Amino acid sequence: MVGGGRDAFIGAVHRNAMALDGQIELVAGALSSSAEKARASGRDLHLADDRNHGDWPSLLADELKRPLEERIDFVSIVTPNHVHFPVAQAFVEGGFHVVCDKPLVHTRAQADALVAAVKKQGTLFGVTYNYTGYPMVRQAREMVRSGQLGELRKVMVEYNQGWLASQLEGAGNKQADWRTDPARSGAAGAIGDIGSHAENLVASVTGLEIESLCADLSALVPGRMLDDDGSLLLRFKGGARGVLIASQINTGLENDLRLRVSGTLGTLEWRQEQPSQLVHLPHDGPKRILTRGSPWLCEAAQRASRLPAGHPEGFIEAFANIYAGIVADIRARNAGQQANAIAADYPRVEDGARGVRFIERTVASAQSESKWTPW
Amino acid sequence: MVGGGRDAFIGAVHRNAMALDGQIELVAGALSSSAEKARASGRDLHLADDRNHGDWPSLLADELKRPLEERIDFVSIVTPNHVHFPVAQAFVEGGFHVVCDKPLVHTRAQADALVAAVKKQGTLFGVTYNYTGYPMVRQAREMVRSGQLGELRKVMVEYNQGWLASQLEGAGNKQADWRTDPARSGAAGAIGDIGSHAENLVASVTGLEIESLCADLSALVPGRMLDDDGSLLLRFKGGARGVLIASQINTGLENDLRLRVSGTLGTLEWRQEQPSQLVHLPHDGPKRILTRGSPWLCEAAQRASRLPAGHPEGFIEAFANIYAGIVADIRARNAGQQANAIAADYPRVEDGARGVRFIERTVASAQSESKWTPW
Amino acid sequence: MVGGGRDAFIGAVHRNAMALDGQIELVAGALSSSAEKARASGRDLHLADDRNHGDWPSLLADELKRPLEERIDFVSIVTPNHVHFPVAQAFVEGGFHVVCDKPLVHTRAQADALVAAVKKQGTLFGVTYNYTGYPMVRQAREMVRSGQLGELRKVMVEYNQGWLASQLEGAGNKQADWRTDPARSGAAGAIGDIGSHAENLVASVTGLEIESLCADLSALVPGRMLDDDGSLLLRFKGGARGVLIASQINTGLENDLRLRVSGTLGTLEWRQEQPSQLVHLPHDGPKRILTRGSPWLCEAAQRASRLPAGHPEGFIEAFANIYAGIVADIRARNAGQQANAIAADYPRVEDGARGVRFIERTVASAQSESKWTPW
Amino acid sequence: MVGGGRDAFIGAVHRNAMALDGQIELVAGALSSSAEKARASGRDLHLADDRNHGDWPSLLADELKRPLEERIDFVSIVTPNHVHFPVAQAFVEGGFHVVCDKPLVHTRAQADALVAAVKKQGTLFGVTYNYTGYPMVRQAREMVRSGQLGELRKVMVEYNQGWLASQLEGAGNKQADWRTDPARSGAAGAIGDIGSHAENLVASVTGLEIESLCADLSALVPGRMLDDDGSLLLRFKGGARGVLIASQINTGLENDLRLRVSGTLGTLEWRQEQPSQLVHLPHDGPKRILTRGSPWLCEAAQRASRLPAGHPEGFIEAFANIYAGIVADIRARNAGQQANAIAADYPRVEDGARGVRFIERTVASAQSESKWTPW
Repeated sequence: MVGGGRDAFIGAVHRNAMALDGQIELVAGALSSSAEKARASGRDLHLADDRNHGDWPSLLADELKRPLEERIDFVSIVTPNHVHFPVAQAFVEGGFHVVCDKPLVHTRAQADALVAAVKKQGTLFGVTYNYTGYPMVRQAREMVRSGQLGELRKVMVEYNQGWLASQLEGAGNKQADWRTDPARSGAAGAIGDIGSHAENLVASVTGLEIESLCADLSALVPGRMLDDDGSLLLRFKGGARGVLIASQINTGLENDLRLRVSGTLGTLEWRQEQPSQLVHLPHDGPKRILTRGSPWLCEAAQRASRLPAGHPEGFIEAFANIYAGIVADIRARNAGQQANAIAADYPRVEDGARGVRFIERTVASAQSESKWTPW
Repeated sequence: MVGGGRDAFIGAVHRNAMALDGQIELVAGALSSSAEKARASGRDLHLADDRNHGDWPSLLADELKRPLEERIDFVSIVTPNHVHFPVAQAFVEGGFHVVCDKPLVHTRAQADALVAAVKKQGTLFGVTYNYTGYPMVRQAREMVRSGQLGELRKVMVEYNQGWLASQLEGAGNKQADWRTDPARSGAAGAIGDIGSHAENLVASVTGLEIESLCADLSALVPGRMLDDDGSLLLRFKGGARGVLIASQINTGLENDLRLRVSGTLGTLEWRQEQPSQLVHLPHDGPKRILTRGSPWLCEAAQRASRLPAGHPEGFIEAFANIYAGIVADIRARNAGQQANAIAADYPRVEDGARGVRFIERTVASAQSESKWTPW
Repeated sequence: MVGGGRDAFIGAVHRNAMALDGQIELVAGALSSSAEKARASGRDLHLADDRNHGDWPSLLADELKRPLEERIDFVSIVTPNHVHFPVAQAFVEGGFHVVCDKPLVHTRAQADALVAAVKKQGTLFGVTYNYTGYPMVRQAREMVRSGQLGELRKVMVEYNQGWLASQLEGAGNKQADWRTDPARSGAAGAIGDIGSHAENLVASVTGLEIESLCADLSALVPGRMLDDDGSLLLRFKGGARGVLIASQINTGLENDLRLRVSGTLGTLEWRQEQPSQLVHLPHDGPKRILTRGSPWLCEAAQRASRLPAGHPEGFIEAFANIYAGIVADIRARNAGQQANAIAADYPRVEDGARGVRFIERTVASAQSESKWTPW
Repeated sequence: MVGGGRDAFIGAVHRNAMALDGQIELVAGALSSSAEKARASGRDLHLADDRNHGDWPSLLADELKRPLEERIDFVSIVTPNHVHFPVAQAFVEGGFHVVCDKPLVHTRAQADALVAAVKKQGTLFGVTYNYTGYPMVRQAREMVRSGQLGELRKVMVEYNQGWLASQLEGAGNKQADWRTDPARSGAAGAIGDIGSHAENLVASVTGLEIESLCADLSALVPGRMLDDDGSLLLRFKGGARGVLIASQINTGLENDLRLRVSGTLGTLEWRQEQPSQLVHLPHDGPKRILTRGSPWLCEAAQRASRLPAGHPEGFIEAFANIYAGIVADIRARNAGQQANAIAADYPRVEDGARGVRFIERTVASAQSESKWTPW
């Protein structure tokens, strides 16, 4: 693992997710950009001293020196965004499989370079768009892709939070600090941090491709350097319309990611805060509430579930499903087999690259006076 | 009453709303554009023969001939949109108080003429934006206006229906026929029919004024002549941002009008389909669910309520509250008094005119390649 | 109307319900037990002086003197409970159709006498168990009766309120005064006032007959003379089991009447505070949310609905549906016809009598040391 | 671990819960009553061969032979109920700390013996009443115990499932087989399996002690040998009243455990299927929705939470909180310290024994013709 030391938020979640199913063991790390904090964090986690590194180049160098059977199976990169690219690129070039947090990198050039490197090396590369790990998101995907909604017409995706409604940056909140800092977060704030999840959710569930977009990005908290509120009109190839909202200044809202997809035959609604429910409104009958763990769900949804219906699963389980997909792919690779597609279900480097393009196009649109910015 | 005969939808609702509180008696009408259907409809409603007219000019002429004490107190215009203007104008010029359905008229020129006529005559003029009659909308208005949300930053309003997701027009559905016909509905479809409610809800609750807007209007059902789906980005004076969506092709959705307003101190959420709840998310404490009928609500909300908390009120009650406001104003006028502002709480001709401008600006934006169309 | 004057709660609701559909005109009354208040209340409602009586015997005598075509079509009795019996008995014996609030009377002897009188006179008699007027309750009834739940096994009905959680009686609250007074309310408090609604809801929806019951009634507010909290175990003929709870000391709860019925093939859930939804959980597929106004509902539910789906209807509309049933029955009777069963859908005097028996048996059980008290 | 091999349900959940926080390593086991299946299951989980036993006496004997520093820190017993007692007793007597699933044992005599053994040995003993591990249950406990509801008056607890609504036993469903078999499940079915959770939830949150109870237990599925539906009236010391329902024949219900507690100052409501919400209805203000992860929660709730608000946690996390409490207690013990009470928050052997008494008293009441069976 690179990043995720003391004070980090998402690193601990990655570790919970890895541990959950007993399939992944954390054996080596460079857990912070500060060598001292990195090592202290590694000791907290009982890493062996010789695999507890002060910086990621040491980790990489050390792993490369080890015999193949001792090496890590993959590296997980959970640093702030600006560190993703060099680490990912180096590990891919070193022949390692990589799991990287989102948004993947800062620029389209970096994204293209990374895609090319992965292609060249033939390694596996997963991006932790964790919300697509929820079983009912996979059920939604199956229902849309198999035509149960008919032809898609309208997509509404919102990701609203309230935690950045006041100026936390510069006041001792490490998360707020880097997420509002262009040097570390990239060209976008809310749109990069959570809008990219919204984009991925739409792409994953619907398969629709954005044709053009029209964005209004604002920094509504005085003094903020990156957008904390963004709203986009979307036009998809084939004629469907969409709206995407990502905002971190909706006071009191927690983590309100929600998706609505309407087609000629029905509508689906899903909310991350009630992840076990998928609401289906067919055009010719009453509303149906599909729930995780039910025997009538698709295989992808069933396999992404650990407990019977009514026993809530949550964020960590969804996150663990992304890791489970990567592990299945690595295991198949190691066994010289083709992975089962339903087992090896996780976002790839190309999804990450598309997310980077989304951010770049959104920022371009926000700076444009033309209504529509092409994809 | 003008319009609202057999087969009409909203006319019957107006009559339920008028009847509910026992304050209004329907005594005269020209209930259809077909003289025969008008008279048959009047007989259904037990109108006296001499006040049951085949067309509205006869109704007007007859009322003007009657002594003042026999005349109707006001006329209610519930026809399809294209008839609003001539009828309203004629009755205002005849010195009658008027209640008119929304959207008020087809063009800004008509709206301006009507506002001028009302001003000149000094008559009262209500527009039945009925959703502002809900007690919890009035509570929301009070909380926003009194500063409980702090400075407003983001407004999200959606009005989604599914009933026009297939091509009902031309297939014997009278409601679909006129609402998708530019000659009768005006320059806009969904944006005029329900988007105008959304605009009014935002204006009423927040008091914010739109500075510029960016609209995408689409007719997604093949062959449809007016928009059935519209999405707008809004910029308000003072810096708040907004999104407004009005769509009638969200298969399976019923009458899903919802509003979210976020300020520096909190967020409010309201859904028309659960109208007795107002969700308040303060920045510094747990979510609160305010319910109709509670003693801690503002006076405007309390007065708009007939039943104790937990005894559901609905659409007709909200509609009746608009009428109750107009009746209070007329009673005060007749008594030579200034009406109590909380009692005489109803949308005025100026609100109707602003709604017409909203439609006109939205259509202009939809046809423009510039991102922002000024108000 | 008898009762329902100034300060009364339910009288005004009856009048709203009567007015809503424009089918019923209030023409005569004795609106209070105080002659002065009765007449003042009648003047508020624009009753003609000669039909605005100071007491109900005068009203009855006056009506009997009038020629048949001038007489009231029916009387509505909305007094506190202890007055129901003499008034109802007298009007029935006078040959009038009667609508009476619930619980019908105080004792089984009174109930039997009233049933006998109605039978003898051949008049119509409705009891305003208003909750059975909700369209989705009628839909539930249809689904249960037509076997969609299979064989019934378990019934859960709760009616919880919080308004009597403190000692309001004796403190100027007229509602609390009479409802906690055995002389006016009868042998039971919460069980009579709201438990009787719960009993009626179960009987109406399921058709199950209670075989034996086991009750625990308590007056939890110090000094209270009647139960404010009651819980019952129920055994139904045929083997189904049930629980019935009626409590008025659940602080903060509003009017939380809810029903759950489980059979071998599925479960239904309904909550009065969201009356437009009926939740159906089939044994072999996902949860379904049936909503008022949908085309796939049964005819009884459709006819009990005034507005399209998504336009909330509430308590008054449900109440008005009870009146509409009675009006349909009276109209048919007056026309010498058999009423359409779906139109003339309202609780009868026998339902009221069964409710009185329920209260009597519950009080007997509460005083018994035996577990099961037979019906 | 004893039990929890292939085909077991709850064993896997225990392992997920143990793994989640990286604090517990599974090193030894006797995972099934079949030696062959036990060893195969252990190989699935990568147990070392010398710690992968075919039966639990071998496991115990082997551990006792090992030097203290190599021994397991505690044993987790996740077998069907009838095996709990001998295993637990033996490990306690061997000086081991024990975690045991619920219900603890079959009889009060066994429970008393176990309590005595634990007392004598001075070992730690946790019972996995996992629902008390939910943060919002701990918040509810704190609010009740600190007097925020005032004096308690009414408790309503329901635990409804539908999975046993048809006769699964004898049809290849291992879970159904043992849970409906008196030899393995004990004297009670639904009341033992899930009613005991309901009892524990009430006791944990309210601290109320049952004074007497009145139970109706039924086997509603033909041929079933143990109750699948139970309803109880409860009287608590001090005067509060309660209802407890546990049923496994509510077709379509999943895992619907819900609690309502009303006091003089307010009511709390919690539902296991939406575990992150706690609804608080104060007597003097609007309903409040407290959510997991909020800074205004009590310390016990905050410590039981891993993720920010809005990032759903679920069943496994709650289960892991029970284990975390036990681990904290063991660590403190090993360090020779008194454990922090908020950290070492888990149900003890005495809670398990009280649960056994509850089952025994409930079965006695169900067989009695007297209304009230004393505790």
